[in-house]
Amino acid sequence: MKKLINSVDSVVTDALRGVAAAHPSLTVDVENKVITRAGGPTPGKVGLVSGGGSGHEPLHGGFVGYGMLDAACPGEVFTSPVPDQMLLATKAVSGGAGVLHIVKNYTGDVLNFQLAAELADDEDIEVASVVIDDDVAVQDSLYTAGRRGVGATVFVEKIAGALAEEGASLDAVAAVAREVNERSRSFGVALSSCIVPAAGKPTFELGDSEIELGIGIHGEPGRTRGPMRPASELAAVALDAIAADSEAGTGLPLDGELLVMVNGMGGTPLIELYVMYEEVARNIAARGGRIARNLVGNYITSLEMQGFSVTVCGLTDQLTRLWDAPVDTPALRWGR
Amino acid sequence: MKKLINSVDSVVTDALRGVAAAHPSLTVDVENKVITRAGGPTPGKVGLVSGGGSGHEPLHGGFVGYGMLDAACPGEVFTSPVPDQMLLATKAVSGGAGVLHIVKNYTGDVLNFQLAAELADDEDIEVASVVIDDDVAVQDSLYTAGRRGVGATVFVEKIAGALAEEGASLDAVAAVAREVNERSRSFGVALSSCIVPAAGKPTFELGDSEIELGIGIHGEPGRTRGPMRPASELAAVALDAIAADSEAGTGLPLDGELLVMVNGMGGTPLIELYVMYEEVARNIAARGGRIARNLVGNYITSLEMQGFSVTVCGLTDQLTRLWDAPVDTPALRWGR
Repeated sequence: MKKLINSVDSVVTDALRGVAAAHPSLTVDVENKVITRAGGPTPGKVGLVSGGGSGHEPLHGGFVGYGMLDAACPGEVFTSPVPDQMLLATKAVSGGAGVLHIVKNYTGDVLNFQLAAELADDEDIEVASVVIDDDVAVQDSLYTAGRRGVGATVFVEKIAGALAEEGASLDAVAAVAREVNERSRSFGVALSSCIVPAAGKPTFELGDSEIELGIGIHGEPGRTRGPMRPASELAAVALDAIAADSEAGTGLPLDGELLVMVNGMGGTPLIELYVMYEEVARNIAARGGRIARNLVGNYITSLEMQGFSVTVCGLTDQLTRLWDAPVDTPALRWGR
Repeated sequence: MKKLINSVDSVVTDALRGVAAAHPSLTVDVENKVITRAGGPTPGKVGLVSGGGSGHEPLHGGFVGYGMLDAACPGEVFTSPVPDQMLLATKAVSGGAGVLHIVKNYTGDVLNFQLAAELADDEDIEVASVVIDDDVAVQDSLYTAGRRGVGATVFVEKIAGALAEEGASLDAVAAVAREVNERSRSFGVALSSCIVPAAGKPTFELGDSEIELGIGIHGEPGRTRGPMRPASELAAVALDAIAADSEAGTGLPLDGELLVMVNGMGGTPLIELYVMYEEVARNIAARGGRIARNLVGNYITSLEMQGFSVTVCGLTDQLTRLWDAPVDTPALRWGR
């Protein structure tokens, strides 16, 4: 294993020190692993907290800032943060209007955020929770009852963050977060495994021309393994899966106005992500859809895994407006 | 070789189609491989053109936009663009105040940009050129007479772009570009090779616990190979090389106010880059330096290579002001 680290035990805290040193807009409690905006809570604003295992950077710490999250609590690599840590984050961002917990659907994360919400309630902080479960690849999985939460988390954090910034109530911010989750679907493909530092070896093995379709962000098994294929066919596999699910489910017509992310898993070069984006855009156009907004890059990763995921969200006028609203975080930033 | 592509022949054009689809702020001439700002040339503003082989994304196309480049011309992977392509870009961004060519010091790029400048002169467009050669690792190298141009290119494009946006003359914009180059030094480390699509196999081979110190952005040989080391020691190797060179050369005192980039080579996860940044920041602090501005992320890459580079630029009040000036490009963006 070759990694830019000092030791497997200190990866997360060393990286958090780096985040603190690089971003004066953030306050980082390295010991307790809580990242908040440097300015403290905004009085009267709903506070947004997310968190989960480390190894998915820039998620979540890179999305703390104006128009998005108020706090992130990173666990150890691919390991849920603990309730006390979540409680600290919740208290740190409480501005009197309640706090929204944005939770990816992994059993540990869900249970720990639930405990944290109860602890916050004991301290008279109102907490609402939204569980993200947008991955259409598999029902139930390693670490998950139901679907896994993946790329839609980025959309939820941005859009709910924008509504919170406008001064909306906790109920309204939670409702838009749930709406974005319900209108979003994702599918991922791995070309290589990641290596968890503490494990020191690949999480899974793939042959020289083998890929895994429907991969999870911790390397959890997908739907099938198969031979490597051209980008155009990989886009079709991902969008067929998303389309089949959308027709069966609620809320996401692939022939409407869409927000689409082509996300890198951490080890894939940007030039390949643009090739994938072109194929995804063509495929969606052939279905009668229109990509009104997009992201191409590494937003929710799996350490050095090579591969990509596609996340599609059916837009409404309100969601588009909130997507376009100003954001100023280390990993997502546009005009205000 | 597993890559998200359709064919090795169409990687660059497919990716350019993706860039065009993803970024309405850009105009992409896919056939001629020229990326410009969608608005056309700004009358009276010096136009900034850069270019070079593809495979280093987001460099250069991701830096086309307000406050940075006016055009980028990408060659095939790790291959110089051609003079006609550079001429097209030069003409496309000429607003009557002259055009600056920002050229990384690789023999092919330098010769082709020189020819393009002569062709532009024939069409009465005044061109100035600045050659970037910030890599302290080796003198002369594969593809290069003198030093290689690497991370300082990002700094030059940002700072010269800001001055051009203010309406400065071609001479002044060229002078600040040269100043940034002279005040900047870089050093890179590879943990793994990249795979050029047309070659289909790793450019070089490294052992399971072996790294290359002083690597070039095309996998050109560095100074030495050696065993993997902790992040703190890798930071020391890079900064010792930069410091030794700075003392011998001109203009970059490591104990002043610095702009520092910890750049990923394309295949290294962000969590590791933050670990590296922390070690670089500590090392610089111990030398009495202060990092006034920073970048952490993938800005000048080598396909899927794992590793990092450090680029250090000695700031002045003017350079800091220009660094802070608004920028709005796909890969670098802050307030205006």
